[in-house]
Amino acid sequence: MIPNWIEQRAGLTPKRVALTFNKQQWTFEELSQQSKYYVQVLTDAGITTGQRVAIYGKSTPQLVKIIFACMQLQVEMVLLNLRLSKPELQYQLEDAAVHAILIDDDLVEGLPNTTTPQLKFSLFEQSVTEGTVIQRWNRETTMTIMYTSGTTNLPKGVRQTVGNHLASATSSLYNTGLVEDEAWICTVPIFHISGFSMLCKCILHGVRLDLYEKYDVESVAQQLIEGTATRMSAVAIMLEKIISHIEKSGKKASPRFQLILGGGGPIPEDYLKRAHAIGIRVAQTYGMTETSSQTATLSSEDALRKLGSAGKALMFNEIKIDGATQAGEHGEICVRGEHVTPGYIGRHAHIPTTVDGWLHTGDIGYMDEEGYLYVADRRSDLIISGGENIYPAEIENVLLGHPAVLGAGVCAVANDVWGQRPIAFIVKKKDVTSEELAVYCKEHLAKYKIPDAFYFIEELPRNGAGKLMRRKLHAYIEI
Amino acid sequence: MIPNWIEQRAGLTPKRVALTFNKQQWTFEELSQQSKYYVQVLTDAGITTGQRVAIYGKSTPQLVKIIFACMQLQVEMVLLNLRLSKPELQYQLEDAAVHAILIDDDLVEGLPNTTTPQLKFSLFEQSVTEGTVIQRWNRETTMTIMYTSGTTNLPKGVRQTVGNHLASATSSLYNTGLVEDEAWICTVPIFHISGFSMLCKCILHGVRLDLYEKYDVESVAQQLIEGTATRMSAVAIMLEKIISHIEKSGKKASPRFQLILGGGGPIPEDYLKRAHAIGIRVAQTYGMTETSSQTATLSSEDALRKLGSAGKALMFNEIKIDGATQAGEHGEICVRGEHVTPGYIGRHAHIPTTVDGWLHTGDIGYMDEEGYLYVADRRSDLIISGGENIYPAEIENVLLGHPAVLGAGVCAVANDVWGQRPIAFIVKKKDVTSEELAVYCKEHLAKYKIPDAFYFIEELPRNGAGKLMRRKLHAYIEI
Repeated sequence: MIPNWIEQRAGLTPKRVALTFNKQQWTFEELSQQSKYYVQVLTDAGITTGQRVAIYGKSTPQLVKIIFACMQLQVEMVLLNLRLSKPELQYQLEDAAVHAILIDDDLVEGLPNTTTPQLKFSLFEQSVTEGTVIQRWNRETTMTIMYTSGTTNLPKGVRQTVGNHLASATSSLYNTGLVEDEAWICTVPIFHISGFSMLCKCILHGVRLDLYEKYDVESVAQQLIEGTATRMSAVAIMLEKIISHIEKSGKKASPRFQLILGGGGPIPEDYLKRAHAIGIRVAQTYGMTETSSQTATLSSEDALRKLGSAGKALMFNEIKIDGATQAGEHGEICVRGEHVTPGYIGRHAHIPTTVDGWLHTGDIGYMDEEGYLYVADRRSDLIISGGENIYPAEIENVLLGHPAVLGAGVCAVANDVWGQRPIAFIVKKKDVTSEELAVYCKEHLAKYKIPDAFYFIEELPRNGAGKLMRRKLHAYIEI
Repeated sequence: MIPNWIEQRAGLTPKRVALTFNKQQWTFEELSQQSKYYVQVLTDAGITTGQRVAIYGKSTPQLVKIIFACMQLQVEMVLLNLRLSKPELQYQLEDAAVHAILIDDDLVEGLPNTTTPQLKFSLFEQSVTEGTVIQRWNRETTMTIMYTSGTTNLPKGVRQTVGNHLASATSSLYNTGLVEDEAWICTVPIFHISGFSMLCKCILHGVRLDLYEKYDVESVAQQLIEGTATRMSAVAIMLEKIISHIEKSGKKASPRFQLILGGGGPIPEDYLKRAHAIGIRVAQTYGMTETSSQTATLSSEDALRKLGSAGKALMFNEIKIDGATQAGEHGEICVRGEHVTPGYIGRHAHIPTTVDGWLHTGDIGYMDEEGYLYVADRRSDLIISGGENIYPAEIENVLLGHPAVLGAGVCAVANDVWGQRPIAFIVKKKDVTSEELAVYCKEHLAKYKIPDAFYFIEELPRNGAGKLMRRKLHAYIEI
């Protein structure tokens, strides 16, 4: 059991600024106060500790307070990805069996039809009564649930406990330290672990979060130049935009600015060198939803010397390469530590997540002789596009639902802007066009998952057991 | 289970300087390597994981490596106070039933006669074979044992687990952060929790420890002026010496120097003001052996506004005033958190340490309306002299062993240099002089515990139940 983070933080540094958004700001005391008002709304709606709600909201202070209120009451939060299609949302809501959906007033149209009670964000703002909060939290309690696909075609709801988030924030603190007037720029979605972990750091480390609803490269670049913030997380495409912007301005990042954590796939060498030239330190990380953010991080000092590496496991984390007996040997990357999820919910609740404490990530990699991790091949042919994970099986599953499709195989192609993009190979049952398939996909999938191209072929490459060999699909494009 | 701190740290920052002593220095990789050689010596001597050894050594790099070796093998360490008399050491060695005594070659004369095997430090230096280390540590495992007296007259061996030390280092990190090129000056004894906790921070936080065998005010002051270190812990008397030295030099502390943690009793107002004037930030702390160092800390910003306060509980710690229903009300200070000892060893092993997780410290204090802790009265008439705890009962017990003493009562008097000093009140059975009693005490007690004065009186103040009322002893001096 540990003390309620929000109350403890508000007690320690009440007047410190916790959050900024546009030109507004909130102290820790204010966030604590307002989240307690919000708790009363949850309680009035019959939501009690240990129950589960879904949250569907843009990255705004309102969302932060809603999340804080759920923490205060120790209610499990299913964080819905705003980019998902209605059928995808429907699946998650059903699988998670939530008691209520807390929804941004502006986004009501985005939800599928559901009988689940909905609480609009505006309702919370009317409360002026403090609800009763949970003063001590159990490390084992599930705090958040985020859906990710993995090897099956049905997304799995990953549990992240109080202890998981705490372990992640603590490892990060041991890794990067904490400077005076620390402030994180948050432009990544809060419904992803990258964004949510920043919210946790804000409370736990007592640092300011500069929240952006949308990625605003101009403002972010300005913050780096002026040194009004100290850290941020970014995927490659965001990083490139910042670099270009600062390069054009002829300026450099302030030495007050500490670090960009680069996640969601590898950062190209060219970006690292250009970042270095304008005074931006970049640390490549390796993490995933199942590990509540970072497991390993390459220090910025090693960024160029160990190009392509994701660094070393943080202080309390462990990494091993399954089956490898020496440096350089490839194998499945396995992760152990208190940041690793205890399991899934819903229909996947029975699937064990770890073996002897080790999470088998499905990613293939190796360690060099100095113990630096290199991720060679992503799990289950995972495609990473602009920081979003795309699982081929999920797209194939949708395509196979189309009456004209007999077989479908999806793989990645390199893309200058997004890193990777999915393309599809189709074996037809009857006549159909690429356009028709794209429209069909759009009805069932988040926009970023729709393949950039559809290739019609005679037969899919399969192994002896009939298993689709996605890696062989590339051969068809080269023809 | 968590990864072996030393190996994890050596893997993360192998080339970083971990320790300096006089003009020498050692990296984390070197300390890891050498401590593994030392492990082989322990193993050769038949000492195995889970067994208990006593350590009797000066604050030298050798001592650090010995301690690291014991950590590597997960051997319990009883850290012997170098100031104790032979009978006091004898008691601790017997109570702890140690398998061996690891002893500084220079200090062999200081040990009482014992049949316990002794391993001299010089023996360790000859090893060139790596021993087998424990790769994963259990949070519940006892790492250190330190004796403290408390309310009984027999000192109790307090267990501090891996998890206790980790929780303490983590709370401290959350509290003060970590700057670039962080380095702690260690002039306090490693056998006390104040020094040992710095060793833990060194490994866990990856910061340099500038170790001093003896308190050298000139060198320390110079480090503050030049900013070659960032933090230190000090008791009032040490702080005053640093301040005086810097004042005389006409200089100021470098802004690179971050903070002095002031422990072992309150820091006088005058010292705080003078420290402030020469650019030294001082944070008053409240901690004890049973809490593996700090529980609460007053931030340096609040140092003058909340004069006399020990601040607020650190991020994962809790403090309550037993029985108090409102701010300002006095009561027993109770502490909860993962830094609290799970219990004692030896003859006190059966005594429970916490009630519902709360350690009842015996100290009396109150919280103000903003939640700041004030320690009003130390536990069991505890006397704090130059940072060392002195328990009146222990001295009275020795005095009562003298054939001429019928009754004895010990209490504190204020002292400009040491903060407090003990004085004794004696009811004689037959003729005896102050000098004779002082000589007798010297045979049985550490030098700092010998009363500064002996007053001969007719009768001791006792309550109805016959219990000695030490607080009434002061009245006799005023006569």
